[in-house]
Amino acid sequence: MKPRRFAVTAGEPAGIGPDLCLMLAGESQPEILIVIASRDLLIQRAAQLGLDIDVRCVSPDAWPTEACSAGTLYVWDTPLHQPVTAGQLDCNNAPYVLETLTRAARGCLDGHFTGMITAPVHKGVINQAGIPFSGHTEFLAELTDTPQVVMMLATRGLRVALVTTHLPLKDVATAITGDRLQRVTRILHTDLVAKFGIAQPRILVCGLNPHAGEGGHLGREEIDIIEPALAQLRSEGINLTGPLPADTLFTPKHLQHCDAVLAMYHDQGLPVLKYKGFGAAVNVTLGLPIIRTSVDHGTALDLAGSGRIDTGSLAVALETAYEMAHA
Amino acid sequence: MKPRRFAVTAGEPAGIGPDLCLMLAGESQPEILIVIASRDLLIQRAAQLGLDIDVRCVSPDAWPTEACSAGTLYVWDTPLHQPVTAGQLDCNNAPYVLETLTRAARGCLDGHFTGMITAPVHKGVINQAGIPFSGHTEFLAELTDTPQVVMMLATRGLRVALVTTHLPLKDVATAITGDRLQRVTRILHTDLVAKFGIAQPRILVCGLNPHAGEGGHLGREEIDIIEPALAQLRSEGINLTGPLPADTLFTPKHLQHCDAVLAMYHDQGLPVLKYKGFGAAVNVTLGLPIIRTSVDHGTALDLAGSGRIDTGSLAVALETAYEMAHA
Repeated sequence: MKPRRFAVTAGEPAGIGPDLCLMLAGESQPEILIVIASRDLLIQRAAQLGLDIDVRCVSPDAWPTEACSAGTLYVWDTPLHQPVTAGQLDCNNAPYVLETLTRAARGCLDGHFTGMITAPVHKGVINQAGIPFSGHTEFLAELTDTPQVVMMLATRGLRVALVTTHLPLKDVATAITGDRLQRVTRILHTDLVAKFGIAQPRILVCGLNPHAGEGGHLGREEIDIIEPALAQLRSEGINLTGPLPADTLFTPKHLQHCDAVLAMYHDQGLPVLKYKGFGAAVNVTLGLPIIRTSVDHGTALDLAGSGRIDTGSLAVALETAYEMAHA
Repeated sequence: MKPRRFAVTAGEPAGIGPDLCLMLAGESQPEILIVIASRDLLIQRAAQLGLDIDVRCVSPDAWPTEACSAGTLYVWDTPLHQPVTAGQLDCNNAPYVLETLTRAARGCLDGHFTGMITAPVHKGVINQAGIPFSGHTEFLAELTDTPQVVMMLATRGLRVALVTTHLPLKDVATAITGDRLQRVTRILHTDLVAKFGIAQPRILVCGLNPHAGEGGHLGREEIDIIEPALAQLRSEGINLTGPLPADTLFTPKHLQHCDAVLAMYHDQGLPVLKYKGFGAAVNVTLGLPIIRTSVDHGTALDLAGSGRIDTGSLAVALETAYEMAHA
């Protein structure tokens, strides 16, 4: 099979994103990876890490047709606004970071790339630059005109999608509406079929309350909101089990018969996922018209340029993007 | 060392509690276990299971001084109100269930027992009998005049205590007050020292909000309530780390340096604990003047009398009670 092109954005230049991209040159890759970053930055960081890597400029005018061999990296050079010191944020480079994301996402929409994999950005420094930015996911949703996206974390053997994501806990219960639950579940189902090639996805749904409300004794949202929404979704042919208590759902008895778990909120689903998949978890944005996966960790400013980084999450992010492209 | 006496309550007579107690006769025990249950029930269930067990009546007048050898079980006979069929609840036996708990707890207070281990009860059927009952924990708190208890789940290698327990999710945020947080943390610290023999317990504290509020962007409770409460507790000499994001706290980097995790609510802490410890987790009530551990599962009515039950949780409940008694 002919290799395909995937964009890898290097993210925050002062963080470990450039280091992660350089590590890709450690071995030959099965697909053509195009790092979107400043070439100067990559060369400088490689020198700091003592890595001898041939950083080759490529561009839409002449994409390479073969995957890199070990020791070589393709970069679509995207100039920095200010030179970078590893570990030191500089809000002058915020537009650079967004330019790398824009190039990758538009490249996916225009057929240049089969998908994009993102290294971490730093929300704070982008906002400091006066650019409202609440995360990759929201940025890509806007850029691709997508009204609803779904955040899903995955590791080998477990996928967890979230009905609500970065909300204060006090606002979670009121955010769980039948409408939202249905929109999120349909996207999850559709993308498990279309992007993961699962013909009949089986989804386990958590309750909102402890013990999934215990028949209304510990909260009524399961009875009043979740069960009616699931009934409607089942009538559309979606295979759902639940709402189940979150503390019994994440056990082998249930998980062995499921393709994804739908958790109602961030800290209900992600602690287990990251416990199970520590160092090897990937963040996937569902609902987009493009394939996008991401490492599940932050910029780790203190480790940039140190050589002491773990590439496990990037490996799973690549593996997952390839899997989604093959489906 | 002379063996000590522990009470084991058989719980709901129609559930798997009696089966679990009978399994104790499968091998000799290191301590003297006194099952508190109906002797007739145990004999009947043993027959149903095809087990040949010598069920010996004992009582406070003449406690045995040696642990049972395999094939023998000590029972403090506590009469049923109605005969029992495995799997069929009967609210007439609710007073019997509470009598077994009362005997065990008073026995602990009076020095008859070093501690008590509880098999599961069925809250619904006790309430159906017209007796207000919200769980073992609350029942034992009242019986022992304890104003505040703390629920802690444990498995080999991980302990998770909860600031709030069986509350609807919508009520959790307002229940997290500085006062409650301090009361719970002090009990956790005190019992880790006194009942688990840990001289300088290290406690990891979860934030309430995703990413522990991310500096106030995702909720202010960490800044306004949790951090001031932790500062006060640290000034009393309690070793606390946090508030940390729950989805990064439960990773080896943090867990390897901790004796217990304090989670803000049920579904933040227990899914990981039960994922890690499936089939081998124990529920410990802290803050009581007595030692009390419990299996972490329910009555499993459909499995009573079937012989297909897992005794892993009971084993850890016993092991933990012994550990607490030795501290």
